[in-house]
Amino acid sequence: MVSIPAAVRENSGLFIRNAWYVVAWDYEVLDDALFERTILGESVIVYRAMDGAPVVMENRCCHRAAPLSLGRKEGDCVRCMYHGLRFDRRGVCVEIPGQARIPADARVKIFPAVQRTRLIWVWMGDPLKADATLIPDTYSVQHPAWASKPGYKNFGANLLLLADNLLDFAHLSYVHENTLGGSTAIAEAPPVITGLEQRGIRIVRRVSGVEPAPYHRQLGQFKGLVNRWWDYTLSISGMFIMSSGVQSADKPEGDLDGALLFHSCQALTPETADSTHYFFSHAHNFAIDAAAVIESIYRSIVTAFDEDKRMIEAQRLVMARQPQRPLVGIAADGALVRFRRLFSAALAAEQNVAAEHNMATDASRTRGVEAE
Amino acid sequence: MVSIPAAVRENSGLFIRNAWYVVAWDYEVLDDALFERTILGESVIVYRAMDGAPVVMENRCCHRAAPLSLGRKEGDCVRCMYHGLRFDRRGVCVEIPGQARIPADARVKIFPAVQRTRLIWVWMGDPLKADATLIPDTYSVQHPAWASKPGYKNFGANLLLLADNLLDFAHLSYVHENTLGGSTAIAEAPPVITGLEQRGIRIVRRVSGVEPAPYHRQLGQFKGLVNRWWDYTLSISGMFIMSSGVQSADKPEGDLDGALLFHSCQALTPETADSTHYFFSHAHNFAIDAAAVIESIYRSIVTAFDEDKRMIEAQRLVMARQPQRPLVGIAADGALVRFRRLFSAALAAEQNVAAEHNMATDASRTRGVEAE
Amino acid sequence: MVSIPAAVRENSGLFIRNAWYVVAWDYEVLDDALFERTILGESVIVYRAMDGAPVVMENRCCHRAAPLSLGRKEGDCVRCMYHGLRFDRRGVCVEIPGQARIPADARVKIFPAVQRTRLIWVWMGDPLKADATLIPDTYSVQHPAWASKPGYKNFGANLLLLADNLLDFAHLSYVHENTLGGSTAIAEAPPVITGLEQRGIRIVRRVSGVEPAPYHRQLGQFKGLVNRWWDYTLSISGMFIMSSGVQSADKPEGDLDGALLFHSCQALTPETADSTHYFFSHAHNFAIDAAAVIESIYRSIVTAFDEDKRMIEAQRLVMARQPQRPLVGIAADGALVRFRRLFSAALAAEQNVAAEHNMATDASRTRGVEAE
Repeated sequence: MVSIPAAVRENSGLFIRNAWYVVAWDYEVLDDALFERTILGESVIVYRAMDGAPVVMENRCCHRAAPLSLGRKEGDCVRCMYHGLRFDRRGVCVEIPGQARIPADARVKIFPAVQRTRLIWVWMGDPLKADATLIPDTYSVQHPAWASKPGYKNFGANLLLLADNLLDFAHLSYVHENTLGGSTAIAEAPPVITGLEQRGIRIVRRVSGVEPAPYHRQLGQFKGLVNRWWDYTLSISGMFIMSSGVQSADKPEGDLDGALLFHSCQALTPETADSTHYFFSHAHNFAIDAAAVIESIYRSIVTAFDEDKRMIEAQRLVMARQPQRPLVGIAADGALVRFRRLFSAALAAEQNVAAEHNMATDASRTRGVEAE
Repeated sequence: MVSIPAAVRENSGLFIRNAWYVVAWDYEVLDDALFERTILGESVIVYRAMDGAPVVMENRCCHRAAPLSLGRKEGDCVRCMYHGLRFDRRGVCVEIPGQARIPADARVKIFPAVQRTRLIWVWMGDPLKADATLIPDTYSVQHPAWASKPGYKNFGANLLLLADNLLDFAHLSYVHENTLGGSTAIAEAPPVITGLEQRGIRIVRRVSGVEPAPYHRQLGQFKGLVNRWWDYTLSISGMFIMSSGVQSADKPEGDLDGALLFHSCQALTPETADSTHYFFSHAHNFAIDAAAVIESIYRSIVTAFDEDKRMIEAQRLVMARQPQRPLVGIAADGALVRFRRLFSAALAAEQNVAAEHNMATDASRTRGVEAE
Repeated sequence: MVSIPAAVRENSGLFIRNAWYVVAWDYEVLDDALFERTILGESVIVYRAMDGAPVVMENRCCHRAAPLSLGRKEGDCVRCMYHGLRFDRRGVCVEIPGQARIPADARVKIFPAVQRTRLIWVWMGDPLKADATLIPDTYSVQHPAWASKPGYKNFGANLLLLADNLLDFAHLSYVHENTLGGSTAIAEAPPVITGLEQRGIRIVRRVSGVEPAPYHRQLGQFKGLVNRWWDYTLSISGMFIMSSGVQSADKPEGDLDGALLFHSCQALTPETADSTHYFFSHAHNFAIDAAAVIESIYRSIVTAFDEDKRMIEAQRLVMARQPQRPLVGIAADGALVRFRRLFSAALAAEQNVAAEHNMATDASRTRGVEAE
């Protein structure tokens, strides 16, 4: 029996900063446009430099706090359209209309950003730690052997409630009864939690001889009973990567001939303490040129995620009424409890470092506030 | 001259728990459905057991706080549709998918509930005190000699502001000038406040030789002047029961031949500190088979209650801007001051008992929180 | 280099009370109606007495805090339509239905009010200081030589953010690029800040040989380049009065033949800490009988003010996320820094007086609260 220690629950308003987060799909950031999004409680703009590289800049002019999202992209630069200050892609102010000398503190924050496959990633923490080799591999988003239609949703709940959801696939039997589930056997099957991987948790679940899911049936593939399996990792920065599949129950184990295989990349990025961005691509490796199949799978996923959204947002409201009230643990909570411990430990480590750093720099930072 | 002591006003965010409250009309709770409502700040679901008896259950799964209102009724039980836990009508968890042993603390709260006439009552306080004989008699809601169309409204204000309204019928002359009032004589007539009854206040008001109310005129009954009377009790749990009537002014006192008699049952149930459920049935004992008469009276009452709602909700906003600012008492405030004293005393008594109880049980209750 | 001291920014939730504020245009206050508006965080009603004079009364009955805006105008009086209390234009209760004696404290607040040209002014501070000769001269609103269509907008931001906007016309080049601006030369031209006038700041800015503004072009006046000038005062109660003009660049300085002259009266009145009423009249002294010209200028101003509104409301949200974060000053901030100092000093002076006054009167004022 497990329950969530109060200390972990209190972290739900806090964000792990030293991690790569998806800030946008490539298709959201148009040429010549400044795309605005709030992540980790901060509003940023995303745009493409002349060389195509993504730039992520805080959405706040250093002069009078006007939003740069109302500004104008000028080559590699952004011009604030309130009083005309212009900032380059390093965040340095390079023009103040009517003023020759530009003060040294006239700059805006730039966050390290990288595009991989079709996802634009940003690092909101210490820039010195922004190691691009840490970015998860989302190959199936853009790969000749896989097809998918990428999607986006916004959930009105903290990232941890979404993580809870992903960490216990028992909910497929109930929340997704008519979409991804289709059998109570999923809830009854014991998940296997393997060791920690990439600051995350790996879970494998398998069911045999069950009805295909309603969304499989839409693909018209299986007449009889099937075997199904899911093998996924959720890492604490919010990345979910899963290999899953379904095969006729008549086939011997290991025979994948005629099986449907999926590779799913789902990125959770905190927007605020009470809302989370959800970027997803649920790729398949069969009939990859059939637009109708791509669309059918996309529709099923969107419908299922709306089912999750409805449940999780309602759950959040119930919790908000009595935030201190204990929860009763069940056996299936093993993964979520471990994940929350990982999350809590990463957060604590980051905050200890930050606290030490703050003590060292507080004196110099406050200098600017009082100057006139 | 009277004014409201600050201590009484501060109670407006608190609820008397040891009282019967109406939670729903019978027609709101459909077979096989889980009806959700918030009362006294708590969300509950109401459903009918197989034997027809109403069950009121907290709207929160003990596992992960998912709302049971998104669940499914299965016979006498409710299944949470997040991870599939099933609870019986006593609130005991009787199934956890994939888990044989069910922990003893896997249960949800059940509140004593009873149906009387067409009203479903619930007791949100100490279950040991839930004495069904205390439920007010609402016979006219369902009686061969009376007819009415029941109704429901939600007022965006604390119960005490609705009580104030009911306790001074002077407002009929102004708020209801064009519906239930029709004469300033009502405001000018002195109310008679009789002793306390059923933890409530009884008020009698009578006017003679006045124009009939506009809603009487719609019934086409009286050509000339009329006498009118109202005799009602408001009890501190929020139940308002009234006998009222109107008779031609030509008739001698006591002669009820041709008079129109009404019996009104109105139940106020706090939803939150700033909103109140209003269940009403304004029954009449004439032309009880005439659907047009029933509808006409219902429409008049609904229109009048909308007049109250507009005034009270606006009043609440004005008060909220300056909650500590004194109010100037007038003679007509006698009833509302007495009612608020009764309310305050009942609340204080209940809280003292609760405080003693809490001291005794704090140690044992906190045990569950830290367990893992 | 200048930046805003924290102390000044903290004043943004406070109001200068001893000042004349516009509460309404004359056309907003209809005969027999009670016009409601919130100013300085207080809800008031405005109506016309029988002699046509404006009356400004708090929107709160002294009895049960019902809003008088739901009341009824009866001659010079207002009747509360909850329980029927009637107040005269001095705020004195002159009738309580059903009660002969009227308590001395049964009164509502009246605020000194005056109409000048088409604007209704109110004084929310110490009535003894309400000197009508202090009301700014808004002659062009109603003058045979000038024409304008008056307008109103509500900005979701503190008055000081609107003042900032008016104090730096560099924003014409960017915010109003397609309406009132039309050239970056405006932002580049140095403003001349003259001494303090009427508790305000006077600013003169002039540009030569620029393209006419898009809104000038709509008037079809100038083919070639033009000279433009603006000469305005913003006083700390929120009044903005400006003489501005545009003339062909071919004409020698001082030759106004064929020039377009404007006189603009704009009044900012705080609604709440985060919203501001904006009353404006942008009058011109040419083609004053041409309805199409009046309408064209009005439309241009409305469009431009919507551009300001969009920027300022977005700026407010950015600031609200990090209220303590420093801003980087630039040379053009001179006027806004001086204005905020004036504002801060006026506020501090008023609060010191109020604090002394409160100490002297606290004992007597609290008497009423506990009385019963």
